[in-house]
Amino acid sequence: MTVNKTSIYTVTTTVNPVGTMRVLSNREVQKLQDTSKRGLHRLFRQCALAVLNGEHEGDSAEELMAMYRDFDIRIIQEQRGLKLKLLNAPADAFVAGKLIRGVRENLFSVLRDILYVSAHITEDPRFDERSTSDITHMVFEILRNADAFLTKHLPNTVVCWGGHSISREEYEYTKRVGYQLGLRYMNICTGCGPGAMKGPMKGAYIGHAKQRVTSSRFIGLTEPGIIAAESPNPIVNELVILPDIEKRLEAFVRLGHGIIVFPGGPGTCEEILYIIGILLNPANKDIPFPLVFTGPASAKPYFDHIDSFIAKTLGPEAQALYQIIIDNPVEVSRTLRTGLEQVTRFRRKHGDAYYFNWLLTIDEQFQKTFEPNHNSMSALELSLSLSTHELAANLRKAMSGIVAGNIKEEGVASIREHGPFQLSGDETLMKEMDALLQSFVDQYRMKLPGSHYEPCYEIVSS
Amino acid sequence: MTVNKTSIYTVTTTVNPVGTMRVLSNREVQKLQDTSKRGLHRLFRQCALAVLNGEHEGDSAEELMAMYRDFDIRIIQEQRGLKLKLLNAPADAFVAGKLIRGVRENLFSVLRDILYVSAHITEDPRFDERSTSDITHMVFEILRNADAFLTKHLPNTVVCWGGHSISREEYEYTKRVGYQLGLRYMNICTGCGPGAMKGPMKGAYIGHAKQRVTSSRFIGLTEPGIIAAESPNPIVNELVILPDIEKRLEAFVRLGHGIIVFPGGPGTCEEILYIIGILLNPANKDIPFPLVFTGPASAKPYFDHIDSFIAKTLGPEAQALYQIIIDNPVEVSRTLRTGLEQVTRFRRKHGDAYYFNWLLTIDEQFQKTFEPNHNSMSALELSLSLSTHELAANLRKAMSGIVAGNIKEEGVASIREHGPFQLSGDETLMKEMDALLQSFVDQYRMKLPGSHYEPCYEIVSS
Amino acid sequence: MTVNKTSIYTVTTTVNPVGTMRVLSNREVQKLQDTSKRGLHRLFRQCALAVLNGEHEGDSAEELMAMYRDFDIRIIQEQRGLKLKLLNAPADAFVAGKLIRGVRENLFSVLRDILYVSAHITEDPRFDERSTSDITHMVFEILRNADAFLTKHLPNTVVCWGGHSISREEYEYTKRVGYQLGLRYMNICTGCGPGAMKGPMKGAYIGHAKQRVTSSRFIGLTEPGIIAAESPNPIVNELVILPDIEKRLEAFVRLGHGIIVFPGGPGTCEEILYIIGILLNPANKDIPFPLVFTGPASAKPYFDHIDSFIAKTLGPEAQALYQIIIDNPVEVSRTLRTGLEQVTRFRRKHGDAYYFNWLLTIDEQFQKTFEPNHNSMSALELSLSLSTHELAANLRKAMSGIVAGNIKEEGVASIREHGPFQLSGDETLMKEMDALLQSFVDQYRMKLPGSHYEPCYEIVSS
Amino acid sequence: MTVNKTSIYTVTTTVNPVGTMRVLSNREVQKLQDTSKRGLHRLFRQCALAVLNGEHEGDSAEELMAMYRDFDIRIIQEQRGLKLKLLNAPADAFVAGKLIRGVRENLFSVLRDILYVSAHITEDPRFDERSTSDITHMVFEILRNADAFLTKHLPNTVVCWGGHSISREEYEYTKRVGYQLGLRYMNICTGCGPGAMKGPMKGAYIGHAKQRVTSSRFIGLTEPGIIAAESPNPIVNELVILPDIEKRLEAFVRLGHGIIVFPGGPGTCEEILYIIGILLNPANKDIPFPLVFTGPASAKPYFDHIDSFIAKTLGPEAQALYQIIIDNPVEVSRTLRTGLEQVTRFRRKHGDAYYFNWLLTIDEQFQKTFEPNHNSMSALELSLSLSTHELAANLRKAMSGIVAGNIKEEGVASIREHGPFQLSGDETLMKEMDALLQSFVDQYRMKLPGSHYEPCYEIVSS
Repeated sequence: MTVNKTSIYTVTTTVNPVGTMRVLSNREVQKLQDTSKRGLHRLFRQCALAVLNGEHEGDSAEELMAMYRDFDIRIIQEQRGLKLKLLNAPADAFVAGKLIRGVRENLFSVLRDILYVSAHITEDPRFDERSTSDITHMVFEILRNADAFLTKHLPNTVVCWGGHSISREEYEYTKRVGYQLGLRYMNICTGCGPGAMKGPMKGAYIGHAKQRVTSSRFIGLTEPGIIAAESPNPIVNELVILPDIEKRLEAFVRLGHGIIVFPGGPGTCEEILYIIGILLNPANKDIPFPLVFTGPASAKPYFDHIDSFIAKTLGPEAQALYQIIIDNPVEVSRTLRTGLEQVTRFRRKHGDAYYFNWLLTIDEQFQKTFEPNHNSMSALELSLSLSTHELAANLRKAMSGIVAGNIKEEGVASIREHGPFQLSGDETLMKEMDALLQSFVDQYRMKLPGSHYEPCYEIVSS
Repeated sequence: MTVNKTSIYTVTTTVNPVGTMRVLSNREVQKLQDTSKRGLHRLFRQCALAVLNGEHEGDSAEELMAMYRDFDIRIIQEQRGLKLKLLNAPADAFVAGKLIRGVRENLFSVLRDILYVSAHITEDPRFDERSTSDITHMVFEILRNADAFLTKHLPNTVVCWGGHSISREEYEYTKRVGYQLGLRYMNICTGCGPGAMKGPMKGAYIGHAKQRVTSSRFIGLTEPGIIAAESPNPIVNELVILPDIEKRLEAFVRLGHGIIVFPGGPGTCEEILYIIGILLNPANKDIPFPLVFTGPASAKPYFDHIDSFIAKTLGPEAQALYQIIIDNPVEVSRTLRTGLEQVTRFRRKHGDAYYFNWLLTIDEQFQKTFEPNHNSMSALELSLSLSTHELAANLRKAMSGIVAGNIKEEGVASIREHGPFQLSGDETLMKEMDALLQSFVDQYRMKLPGSHYEPCYEIVSS
Repeated sequence: MTVNKTSIYTVTTTVNPVGTMRVLSNREVQKLQDTSKRGLHRLFRQCALAVLNGEHEGDSAEELMAMYRDFDIRIIQEQRGLKLKLLNAPADAFVAGKLIRGVRENLFSVLRDILYVSAHITEDPRFDERSTSDITHMVFEILRNADAFLTKHLPNTVVCWGGHSISREEYEYTKRVGYQLGLRYMNICTGCGPGAMKGPMKGAYIGHAKQRVTSSRFIGLTEPGIIAAESPNPIVNELVILPDIEKRLEAFVRLGHGIIVFPGGPGTCEEILYIIGILLNPANKDIPFPLVFTGPASAKPYFDHIDSFIAKTLGPEAQALYQIIIDNPVEVSRTLRTGLEQVTRFRRKHGDAYYFNWLLTIDEQFQKTFEPNHNSMSALELSLSLSTHELAANLRKAMSGIVAGNIKEEGVASIREHGPFQLSGDETLMKEMDALLQSFVDQYRMKLPGSHYEPCYEIVSS
Repeated sequence: MTVNKTSIYTVTTTVNPVGTMRVLSNREVQKLQDTSKRGLHRLFRQCALAVLNGEHEGDSAEELMAMYRDFDIRIIQEQRGLKLKLLNAPADAFVAGKLIRGVRENLFSVLRDILYVSAHITEDPRFDERSTSDITHMVFEILRNADAFLTKHLPNTVVCWGGHSISREEYEYTKRVGYQLGLRYMNICTGCGPGAMKGPMKGAYIGHAKQRVTSSRFIGLTEPGIIAAESPNPIVNELVILPDIEKRLEAFVRLGHGIIVFPGGPGTCEEILYIIGILLNPANKDIPFPLVFTGPASAKPYFDHIDSFIAKTLGPEAQALYQIIIDNPVEVSRTLRTGLEQVTRFRRKHGDAYYFNWLLTIDEQFQKTFEPNHNSMSALELSLSLSTHELAANLRKAMSGIVAGNIKEEGVASIREHGPFQLSGDETLMKEMDALLQSFVDQYRMKLPGSHYEPCYEIVSS
């Protein structure tokens, strides 16, 4: 092992795989080493670096790659299987010269998923990205290959969503909630990264310690586009790399048995519209799905505004899908526990798998990427005459576009060039969205280029 | 559970999978249930029945299917994954109304392999049956999917070949050899079935008991064509169903680290020619491969005749590849142990995997089926001027054809109709083969239709 | 390691303890090393040698000590705890220079029990050998210290009694019974040694293999006086050294949940009278205790004579306590399984431990040694007017004395010097005993000094 | 289960033992139930209540017993062993009506130790409390019975001492140190209770999580007199109840492989004098024993004063025994890791056990209780002419007496009645002690009855 002391510290070393890493064939090794476009090396290197940077937070992929431009990763085949050669890897992933075991495991999860997704999903001519059923089967097969289906467990996986740059108080609150979930034997699934994704795991870990749970599951679901910005903390002990954002979202709702939403920004709000949109689908009417919004007292306004927005746009039917619980971790965990028992009974009754929510219908429009631009935005129908789940889907897209138009580099440039998005929707709807976005600004939950929020759209009479 | 008492006893019941059975997708279930030609139900039902009949011996697939014509197997999807519904299954697979756990495990191995081979080998358009490299990768992927690669183990898997209908004395001898292998921590891999395939496992199991080995591996490699006749005894705790006889043979030599050959009939002799043919390939010159022929004192003539045949046809180079050890289980197991240590050193030195013999070259002609008929037989070149490994390959084919012409239904009929096979070979070679086959007859190792052995071929001057 | 080749092969080496060996204090080490009378070294050496000779059979302690007079065993304290230094140990306990793991485990069991019995039983001034309750607590504490109480198991321990020098046919039968017990998840407890003590374990092991039981219990209960003659086969994986024959017998009936008696000689008959005498005690009236006598067809006369003897002396009440099942291993194992379920229900109902039969009353006369001599024999009351359990106790003692007077060195000499034992009993009783002993002679189950059986006692009118 | 809602919440329920609880004999159950003076019920009840109160902090035994005066605990014998019946137990030990598993385990540790200490230590007539060797063997046997000796581990147990009511900043610092220790695979041993005893465990747990250590050891050593005030947090997963304070201290130094001292009050200072006194013994000269004092920057004055006191009284020889590291958790954990490697080499070289420090000499005066009163205090020799380890021993006693005279109820009353303690010592020594105690007052580390510190002793010319 050599440690290179420049401005950033790096380590060059060789690491063994952990217990269950499957051996590779010579062909697979070649593919991972292949630096050409057809090869997987670039993707592997990028995701591996994100995992090695897991103790750090918030860098973008570009920043990360720039900072560790000499970083590389190679595969060595030996008599006991493969090893990984790390060159100029971030030193913080090592203790006493050895890679932290949790980082090592996650590194091999990356390898596993990149290979599998390539060979059996994206390159398999028998899968069709346009088929709803095919997409669900892709998510299923990726999760199965990652051994994410534990058939002996009763439903106990709680998905935690929320912001990654929340206040210290909110972060401590996510730990307290996690602690109560852990004491009640629940496992945590998040999108990796800091803030509301890390706190619940830390708390649950201490809860599990007191209950002597040694098989804690801390599942992190991520995808190549986000892994650098929300790199997996080594506490995550089941890391799965889905191929894109939509499959990742589908994995959350099919693998998780309930969802807790902590405070966040507009991204968290989009996730709320995603899950509500799915649950509003009449096909999902009778499927129990525990959904709780919670935070410390200081987070009450955040959820109040969202609740009010939902009330006025999607109505009481949508409001009935979730509970808002403020400053009460015990109550949150009891609610989830009760909800999971309903889920268990329902699945048993209907013979649906405990480990994968087959019965939930997810519309094509939630499975496919929405790319916000002037065309796609003006094509959106935003009318109270739509069914609520269609409206929820379109509101989610509109929200996505507005956020892009306000703060994302590409979106802001597009607005500057072509003027505001033209939305043909009910004016009242748009006013509510304005108010909601303004409240995020007021609570410092949205990083705006300027000092105040200015709508990036216009209503066209519909 | 209902037990139907007719002339044969059957049981109808439901069985749960064992620990590590992966869950199935809805599509996979449909495929297994599909009774059409495209579906897998017929194959699944037939292999499952063979496994359920594992305590019995020697029935052909047809006899078995006829005996249990009401037998059926169905898949039930439930909240914890799948169950199997067995209808009118052989009662001997059950104790106190419950399926013997070893049978249950093997049943789920059948399911696993049939699904995998179908989805990822035979139906995957990216594999080419004509490519030597592709065939080896198929064998690799099937074994990997069956979790047959244990990277933590040093080479310790001994393949045992030999007859399935051997004498009591020879059977007891295979147990004694197995016992000594077991005491020395070696694991056993056979083709399933009775006789020389079962004895070594039973012996090794007692050896392991005394050494407190609780992770014994008793690997059975089989294929759909043979599984009914050589059904897996429940002691087999790793069952793999390869798709055909050639891939099964390749699995033996790539997964096993050494081979012991017990007495058998002409089939065993063919296997001997198979492994010798491979090892004679100049590309394999330096690869250590422990190979021992052994039996009790009464089996000495059997191996003497084979040794003499090899001496006169393939010469001392071939003889140097094996040792014959008579009536000495301790010596056999020590020889294997020493051989495995050489294998270990070799693989470590060359970085070849402990769990899969990548470096061994297996020619196309050993990977492809030889179908003996008048054309293929007359096309064989049987000349001492060939290189030894080519000659070994052709001798194996000739032996295969002669056995077919003498005792296999189809072959006998073909000879009756078209006259003897025309072989263009050296006369001396053929005389040796005559002598060898006659010795099998004298030792009652070949079931002939008539009372004496009559060659089914003629030598054409070459 | 050095191997000394003289007429007998020995090995000198050092062995590590197995997993759970507790560490020793310096005082304990000193005690084990102490070769003075107060020390434990002599006893430890003698029992250790018996264990190391476990693959051999039938030597007496004196023969064994004479054969390996250079054998010694020493304790080495090191940073990880103790090691044992073996000097000139029997070579057959080693494979490839390493002590067979099962032998190693049993060696450390010897160490454990010798230390514990010395420190906490025989040398603890708080225990009183005259107290029935104290004796039972001693048995309890020795078994508990040996981790013989597995509270998670339902009652499934079957004690197998029978001769150690039985015919090949009878031995094969004990294996077949063991196999069926093993298939039904039962564990085996015997007195160690060959014959009927080894066969059931071997059979059960294969049964367990098919059921994938990896936590098989093969319990051997022995004591220093018998361990050399019936040395523990390495298949025994829980060896307990009780301090004397009576505590060993008590351990059998309190630890085991049912008993199978295979054919044996007069010693086996004594054991039958022991268990029947206990079960006839009115205090034990309602306690279920499965008891089966079984053997192949050829063993029918043996059990017929015993049954007839019991009928005529102890009557139908005693006959009701056992079943005789000839040549039917499946039926034997089903009977035991049913019996164990009754035991389970009874213990649950009465809150008695699954792992130790507290409720069974064992009279003082079954706990204390009977030393047969002219005084003790003439003091025996052998009258049909006694209660059956008292009569059973006395018959057992009389049987013990008669066997001693006929075949044991000391007893034969005593008869030669002082004339026959004077028994004051019913003449009919004695005639039945004569007939029974004659039947053992006729079946070659008793090794007599002369060619025919001659009673060594006289009846005195009572 | 019934929950009684009065001012305090209690639960009445039955709990099963955890995995390895040994079964009890009827006699042992009686002893635990015996409420007479000879019985163990009172002690058991009191310690059990402390464990059940583990989530709370700082109550005295009397307060606790008064608060839960209806609390009781009973033993129920059943077929699978024992259960505990809890009556009116503190509700906070329960989640969803079930006892937190960690609390349950610790409850059964209490039972185990109380029984063992009673039967095999205090009541065994063969042990002599006046013998140094006997006392060490008692500590050894109690720890061994608690399975505290893991022979497979290399030395990795770090004892953490320090105050239980430290500042938030100091508490967070103990977590940071624990985290770094955990990342380096070290285990934690403390005296149970809050503050510096809890923080390192919590931190180490997260460190272990990242290293995927599932066999973390969080050892708590306590004794009946302190368990109520410093009740074991459920994170403690190995709880041992020693019979008195001196055996507990001996257990720390023989079981632990190094010591970290966090800030505390005068009690912590006493512990420092205890370990330094032992290490100064010439017999211990060459025995490596890592000893680090550490805290955040704000704790620097605390350790500066102690260091200065040691410099002036015991000199540089004593100062050489420890390192003071301020505000640097990584450096602390590296120092310990290096130190443990020295310990490992030393023990290997000298054949001393990894699991118990047999070679360390502990004088009689560190093994026996010092009861401070006017007699014992005036008998103390406090002279610089003493050897340093004798002086350390006496300083520790003097410190103990002064603390008692200043703040402990009994001591304060005694001073009030009889006037100040008369110490015959060097005046300079006493001035240093004054200064040290004053520094504790200034740092708010000593709770005094009045507003300023007043010496409770006078120097008598020696």
